[in-house]
Parts: sequence; C-alpha cells; structure tokens
Amino acid sequence: MSGYPKRPIITLLSDFGSLYPAEMKGAILSRIGDAILVDIAHDVPPQDVRAGAFALMAAAGHFPKGTVHLAVVDPGVGTDRLGIVVASGGHLFVGPDNGLLIPAAKSAGEPAAWMIGPSFFEGAAPTFAGRDVFAPAAAVLASGGDPGSFGPAVDPAGLDFGRARILDEGIEAEVIYVDGFGNVVLNSAAIPWDRVELMGRRLRRARTYAEAGADEPLITLGSHGFAEIAVNGGSAKDLFGLAPGDRILLERGDCSE
Amino acid sequence: MSGYPKRPIITLLSDFGSLYPAEMKGAILSRIGDAILVDIAHDVPPQDVRAGAFALMAAAGHFPKGTVHLAVVDPGVGTDRLGIVVASGGHLFVGPDNGLLIPAAKSAGEPAAWMIGPSFFEGAAPTFAGRDVFAPAAAVLASGGDPGSFGPAVDPAGLDFGRARILDEGIEAEVIYVDGFGNVVLNSAAIPWDRVELMGRRLRRARTYAEAGADEPLITLGSHGFAEIAVNGGSAKDLFGLAPGDRILLERGDCSE
Amino acid sequence: MSGYPKRPIITLLSDFGSLYPAEMKGAILSRIGDAILVDIAHDVPPQDVRAGAFALMAAAGHFPKGTVHLAVVDPGVGTDRLGIVVASGGHLFVGPDNGLLIPAAKSAGEPAAWMIGPSFFEGAAPTFAGRDVFAPAAAVLASGGDPGSFGPAVDPAGLDFGRARILDEGIEAEVIYVDGFGNVVLNSAAIPWDRVELMGRRLRRARTYAEAGADEPLITLGSHGFAEIAVNGGSAKDLFGLAPGDRILLERGDCSE
Repeated sequence: MSGYPKRPIITLLSDFGSLYPAEMKGAILSRIGDAILVDIAHDVPPQDVRAGAFALMAAAGHFPKGTVHLAVVDPGVGTDRLGIVVASGGHLFVGPDNGLLIPAAKSAGEPAAWMIGPSFFEGAAPTFAGRDVFAPAAAVLASGGDPGSFGPAVDPAGLDFGRARILDEGIEAEVIYVDGFGNVVLNSAAIPWDRVELMGRRLRRARTYAEAGADEPLITLGSHGFAEIAVNGGSAKDLFGLAPGDRILLERGDCSE
Repeated sequence: MSGYPKRPIITLLSDFGSLYPAEMKGAILSRIGDAILVDIAHDVPPQDVRAGAFALMAAAGHFPKGTVHLAVVDPGVGTDRLGIVVASGGHLFVGPDNGLLIPAAKSAGEPAAWMIGPSFFEGAAPTFAGRDVFAPAAAVLASGGDPGSFGPAVDPAGLDFGRARILDEGIEAEVIYVDGFGNVVLNSAAIPWDRVELMGRRLRRARTYAEAGADEPLITLGSHGFAEIAVNGGSAKDLFGLAPGDRILLERGDCSE
Repeated sequence: MSGYPKRPIITLLSDFGSLYPAEMKGAILSRIGDAILVDIAHDVPPQDVRAGAFALMAAAGHFPKGTVHLAVVDPGVGTDRLGIVVASGGHLFVGPDNGLLIPAAKSAGEPAAWMIGPSFFEGAAPTFAGRDVFAPAAAVLASGGDPGSFGPAVDPAGLDFGRARILDEGIEAEVIYVDGFGNVVLNSAAIPWDRVELMGRRLRRARTYAEAGADEPLITLGSHGFAEIAVNGGSAKDLFGLAPGDRILLERGDCSE
C-alpha cells in the first residue's frame, strides 16, 4: 500500500513533557474525531528549538505524504511572534515562526509558508498557543483545509544546524541532539579521517555499535545522516559530559600510531 | 465539526509509568477494538491523588463530549475501597472512589455517580484493579453501556484543592502540581497584588513567560486558571525547591520600594 | 465484543526512549494507514534484553488475538544477527533473534518461528533495523501477510528468566524488572514461607500493597505471576538498592521470633 492514508495522521512534537500534549490532542479530536495521533517526542530539552528541529527533521520524512506535523518548542509564546503553516513535499507543518519547522520542511522538499495571522491568537491562553492556536490549525489542515486560509504567504524565520568546520587538526562541530541511549549527534554529515579522537580518547570508526568493544567509544553515521558519537553498551553523553549546544573538537588522529 | 465523535475516545491517566498502561489498553482493545486511546499522563507522582486529580481536571474538558476518562491513582488498591463511574456534562469518568475523579467531573458539569459493585472486583488481580476492573468498565461505557449498570447511585468521596488563604502579609497557598518545565501550580485562582515575593525574591507578575527577563522568576495565571510560579528559561521547582503538597507564603510586596 | 479486531493492532516495545519509536510508527503507517499503534514501553533499560522480554511477556497476553507485537531491544543491531517472526496462540511477534520475543511467545501458546532473511536487511540503516526491517515486517503481518514469507522456519535463540533456587536458608533469586513505582520483580513464582527477610529487614507477606504499614516493605505475587518486593508508599528499588540482573537471597525468617 502506498500514497495518502485514508485517515488523517497528525504527529506531535514539543518540550511539554506530559499533560499538555493531551490538551492539544483533545483540541484536535474535538474538531476531527477520526485523526491518528502519533507522538514524535515531548521530551525535547525545554525551549531548545534546535534540538526540537533536529528531532522533527529526523522523524517527519518517515511518515506518509499528507501527514500534518504539529510542533511546539516556543520560548516566545505570548509575545508578538506569530505562527506559520509550511507545505513541503506533500507534508504539512504547523507551529511557531522561530525556525523549528524549517529543517524538516527543507528535508521534505521545497517549502512554501503562510502566516497564522493575529486573529487566530485572539482569545487564546497567552501561555498555551500550542493548544489554542496550533492544534486547531493542525485539525483544519488534516481535514483538508487550505494552508493559505490562515494568512498571507511569508518568508519564515530560518534555522540551520551550522556546519562543522574542517580544520587541519580536526573537525570543529556542535552537538545538536542527545538521544535516549546517550548517543551524541553532531552537525557534521561526514567523518573525513580514519582516526578520530575526542578529549584524548580514540573513537573507533564503525558502521554499527556492536563493532566496538564493550564500553569502547565510537563514531558512526547515524540513521539520520549525521555523525554520531556512541559508546557500545554505554552512554557517550555521560562518558564525555556532552549536551546540546556544546562545541567540540574531533581531533584528527595520527595514523602512524 | 462538533458534537460526539464517531469513534469512541478513552483517555488514560495514572501513576503507573510505563508497561502497566499498555496492559489497560490491551484490556480495552480486547473489548472495543475501534477505540481511540489517548494518554493524559502516566507520570503522576506515585500515589499522589491530588496531583492526579489536577491533571485530569486540566485536560478532560478539552476532549469532546462522549469521551470516557479512565484514571487510576489508587493507594488503596486491593482494599475494600470500591470504584465509581461518574457522568458529568457529557463526559464519563471511571476510577477509584478516592476523590481522583471529582474535580474534573465538577469542572465538566453536575456530576452523578454510580458504584462499581464488589462483584466486578471478583477474580481481579488484587494489585491491579486498573486493568481488571476499571479498564473493562471504561470499554463498556465507551460502547454505550449504562453507567448505572455497575451498581447503585452513590455519593462519592470528595476531593478539593483547598483554598489559598489571603492574609494581611500575603497568600498562604499549597502546591498542587509541578509540570515538566518545573512550573509550580498553586491552589489559588487569583493574585490580588501587584507585587508578590517568595522566599525573599520578587516574582514578576506576567501574562506570559517571555515578559520576564532571562532566569527571572514570575507568577502568572496558567492556562488551567490557577496561579503558577515559573522562571523564564528555567525551573521554578528547582529555584525554590518545591514539590506537590508544599505550603508556601506568597508575600505581599511593598509597592513603595 | 470478542475475537479478532477489525482494525489491525500493533504494539511497540523498545529501549529507544523517544524519537526513534516515532520513526518506526511512520514506517508502519506509510504501509498500513489504518493500524492502531500501542506503546508497551520504550524505557526498557538500554540493551537489557531480559527486562524487555519480561515487559513484553507481561503485556502481550492482554491484547486481543491477531495483535502484532513489534519489539526491539537489540545490542547486536548491524551484526549478522537476523530477525524472526514468531506466531503463537493467535499472536504474532517480530524482532531480533536474541530471545526477546520468546517468553511472551511461550506464554501465549506453542511458538512457531520463521527467519527474516538477509535480503530484508539490504539497504537498511545498519544502526536501525527496528525502523527499516522490523517495522515494515510488522506492517506486512498486520495486513495479513504470511509469517513464512520472510524466510525459512527456524529454531530461535532462547531466553528464560532462570529459576529461583530454594535453599535451606532461603530463596536465591534474580531481579528481572523494576517498575515505575520501584517495585522489584523476581524470577520466582512462589514465596514458600510465611516469614521472609531481605538484607535484615522483614518483608510482610501481603496480597495488596495497602496491607503493609506506611513505608513498610512487603512481598507479594504481582499481577504478572512473579514475586514482587514493594514498599507501601515508597520504592523497594531505592530502599534496597536493587536493579535488573542483581541476585539476592530472600532469607527464611524464624517464625518463633
């Protein structure tokens, strides 16, 4: 089976933890009772728009065309920051205009964006646009509503993960995500050398975690296409003390060693 | 679209963490294979009936009429404490008769309650009425079953969040919930003064989190209608060391300062 | 209502935390848009195949016949370890051939197993067979596909929880699971004596948690049929410092005390 699903699918991503995602789901099901709701993640580090953007980008493309992706990581909630709807490659995205949706939308195709105008924020709880503005908008889109019905076309705020810099002595990269295993995702799509070290420890280049010895650190290209530091049977986050936003130097190892 | 959904919706709330909610869902889907199941929260602090009652109250009203809310925070599981079904404002609630369901039911309308009689507990695992009694009862209700079919009408055990006391020097309030951001919800529906202090720190009165400076504590009326202490970009729970059940004095600040 | 559900049900269990389960769900919904997806647990301790096997066994039997159970706790991902499909008692199981599925399958009936052959792993991300191999296989099965279409019948790798040894001085048992309350599940299906002690503290034998006094440790047969150490209103995990894999001696108490 392929192509558009018969029942509308809405994914949800936020930094809300529990409880508040359910309020968004209630708001959706009150409008479109037949939606399939799928959580991507609600444990994005609080207000970490970049980590949320990475998670959305990693997951969205695995859903069928026609899916509506509702994402809310929104330090500016209640300010005059508006919302946007983005269409790209058959997927639809709804959320704040702070860059959160952009990497996923670019990954899906050629994005077109429309403002969710100020009138949609009237009467909304100033601390919870996710429930009162974005979830209803997602329901409209999942029901076949026109993305342009919310407001004029806009050029949305951007966000990228930067680029790792390749220097003589190594790669200067930034941590963009840490997963539940403690695997550390970097903003680098390549590992140009055979030998790489971090903080004085060699990272084994591997295709899979199990190629490394027990508790041995390794570096691999993750299933999302970014370089990832892991520890076989352990946590790279704990071993190296890393968190999203940290900048690191992956040192080029000496092959003659 | 409005009105009753075509497919029955059942929400679930508990202090079970993971695994056990799935056993309740299996018990439901074995009886009503077409239900839409939505988690409200399963990370209610263990056996904290008041925190669970708050979360249920905050979320239930956002679901459409006809929704069945299955909630289990139940320190008395296996004792002679019985279960209840409550109907209120078009919503149905199922769970233990310990007050957990009452604030949500009162918030929805005029509650009427029926006992889930002792015969429904026969053969149930003494440690898991949620799976063996309440989940099957929720499936019956979601299939259109009569709430009065479980037992006689009863006057259920009550629960309220108390009232914050307004004194000359400030408001004596109680923490009823701490959310995933570390925002601290109080049992007070008003903040009567412009200047409020807690533990010697001023709390900025704000409509939104972003009105405060970075790392500045603030107080706002949350989207649930209760006063909420937050820190812009941080955690009020960590800053003030607060947990559900704590009593605090919100001091009236001196406006001439 | 009983018997096979009209819409296919797929349960998911893993040690993935968040994000990656959504990628598996997207892969399923891209193939079978009408599936009901139910999470059993994604917080299995990383790479703890035995804890995952216990959780799957505890939950699977509560779902209706015809359910497909997709489970991935897979330290050997990317190696030449293959996958299997297991049919047992009307349930279907999909996952790695490392024993994870076996206790649940044996609990459901008489298992028959088929290999998911090497051709299904071609083109899959070496670090994410769950998304690229097992989730698509689960979708095929949930659509009515033949378990034998993936490869030849095989004798799968086994896994059991061992047996607690009953000695003169007590029971030597192993911790196989710790739940969200901190209740500690042992590989023992019986508690042969009236008095049991652990680390010098008496464990009250109880049918329910509430039979013990506040903060009193107890031992009970859990709803899953295994002995479980709990603390009424507290955490046995914290009180005794226990984790999956720990071996303990439940000492036979002196009844004359």
